[in-house]
Amino acid sequence: MKTDHVESSAPENTFAAGAAYVKGRFVPIGEAAIPMTDWGYRRSDVTYDVVGVWNGAFFRLDDHLARFEASMRALRMQPTETMAEIRAILTRCVQLLGRREAYVAMDCLRGVPRPGMPARMPGSCANHFAAFAVPWVWVVPEEVQRRGAHLIIAETPRIPDVCVDPTVKNFHWGDLTSALFEVEDKGADNALLLDMSGNLTEGPGFNAFVIKDGKVLSPDRGALEGITRKTVFELCEKLGLPFEIRPIPKAEVLDADEIFLSTTAGGIMPASRIDGRIMGNDRPGPISAELRETFWRLRAEGWHATPVEGLA
Amino acid sequence: MKTDHVESSAPENTFAAGAAYVKGRFVPIGEAAIPMTDWGYRRSDVTYDVVGVWNGAFFRLDDHLARFEASMRALRMQPTETMAEIRAILTRCVQLLGRREAYVAMDCLRGVPRPGMPARMPGSCANHFAAFAVPWVWVVPEEVQRRGAHLIIAETPRIPDVCVDPTVKNFHWGDLTSALFEVEDKGADNALLLDMSGNLTEGPGFNAFVIKDGKVLSPDRGALEGITRKTVFELCEKLGLPFEIRPIPKAEVLDADEIFLSTTAGGIMPASRIDGRIMGNDRPGPISAELRETFWRLRAEGWHATPVEGLA
Repeated sequence: MKTDHVESSAPENTFAAGAAYVKGRFVPIGEAAIPMTDWGYRRSDVTYDVVGVWNGAFFRLDDHLARFEASMRALRMQPTETMAEIRAILTRCVQLLGRREAYVAMDCLRGVPRPGMPARMPGSCANHFAAFAVPWVWVVPEEVQRRGAHLIIAETPRIPDVCVDPTVKNFHWGDLTSALFEVEDKGADNALLLDMSGNLTEGPGFNAFVIKDGKVLSPDRGALEGITRKTVFELCEKLGLPFEIRPIPKAEVLDADEIFLSTTAGGIMPASRIDGRIMGNDRPGPISAELRETFWRLRAEGWHATPVEGLA
Repeated sequence: MKTDHVESSAPENTFAAGAAYVKGRFVPIGEAAIPMTDWGYRRSDVTYDVVGVWNGAFFRLDDHLARFEASMRALRMQPTETMAEIRAILTRCVQLLGRREAYVAMDCLRGVPRPGMPARMPGSCANHFAAFAVPWVWVVPEEVQRRGAHLIIAETPRIPDVCVDPTVKNFHWGDLTSALFEVEDKGADNALLLDMSGNLTEGPGFNAFVIKDGKVLSPDRGALEGITRKTVFELCEKLGLPFEIRPIPKAEVLDADEIFLSTTAGGIMPASRIDGRIMGNDRPGPISAELRETFWRLRAEGWHATPVEGLA
């Protein structure tokens, strides 16, 4: 981790569009690049995590770092940076960006085989860490969150857990991309994917929740174990809302009283329609709205926050 | 497609390790890089193809270009380069590399959303084409081909066709990478993957064939429609070998008389063991050997060859 090439973040910030860390150096996001031959690209042999910065503080940074470390272990990856160094790099990226709201990504790539090692084997490779911070991104635009997202259930099923483990955050988005084209074709906002057995999994970049008869339901498989999802369970406990983590068949999704989505880059995002059916009054339902409001109120109060030093 | 930055390939060839085309420019392979924010990396939203150059000529170039074009169409991608320009770019990469044997890759990446377009939708993106030529790569080392590869049947199943279409060549290698770790753990050479129903699909970068009672069998689903696979069918017709394209259950794989693999970067590659069981005399079987020998003999005679002009 070299910091000698870091430039000042004022008065003209060359990192205004984003600050990245690649190959041991901090560079503007426009210069952050992955070798075309890297298996992180060429085999999508990479894991990543995304942590949010809001109001000048990371949200649940320890949880994101712990998940990222577990993902690397699952893929037998070992970058040269320690977890303490990774934490410092993420912080430095946010400082260079100079924003109080940021989307902060960390990647560990397989790399390419070391000289003299078997040429086509993943265990031969020198793994490497990269990261970036860019201005905050909304997975669902704010105006869509206010009226409630119009969702469809995609015809494309989610890649099964036994093929690619969804709890190890990954870029295997082929099914999610197909679902997004279905969304575009149908004029909807976003999509939920089912597994091969017809149970709810997740959507492109978010977890999904169904509310029925006052109970909050979340799938027990086929999806990332989201940090914001975990936060929803904590909020349910705080608010005295019953919740269940179990398989959710398609019929229950279509019959939902409310549906909402959760993700780092968006928090808790209510839906108002599913496959054309209007839920409630075509606006975010009361439980989703209460969860969303409580989530942002607690965050404003510094819940699970790790302040980033040196931000204006 | 700008060519004004091209350097001479002699006397000291800066392209000796590889010649790439990225963002409209030819660069040495070491400088070929993908933006860290490109969805081609960040969502593995990319298709590719690989064509081989042997003895100074492309093998089945038209077939590879046709498949690549079909893959781009399936993913609704449209690069700025025409197919004629892509053909010329691949040729130029080989000329810059200056080798008579080369591995030539072409990628089309989703890119990132155009300014003012919906931020998270694939249809918003400006797609782009990239390519490279590097010295020939053997997917299975030559000495392993001579004794016959030791294969295992991986416990990890292949991603189902309905989730990610395997006929659209892609980098969703999570399952294949898991299989390669199983290979490393068991001290084998390579792996075959089954689908969720227990039928043979393919392996990491190659198609698979089973020979039983003089008949050549190849899976009818769950795998890339390989150009070398297609070539095997043509060879079977030439040699009067019966072949069938149909589901191949695991039991038939384990009971095979012979097994061989096919790929652009390796041709026809015989196996000698499957899950520890020795086939025949622990060496490539007679039909696999005949196919392999005929394949390379016909290629030496210029079969399906498109010579690259200007190679030494």
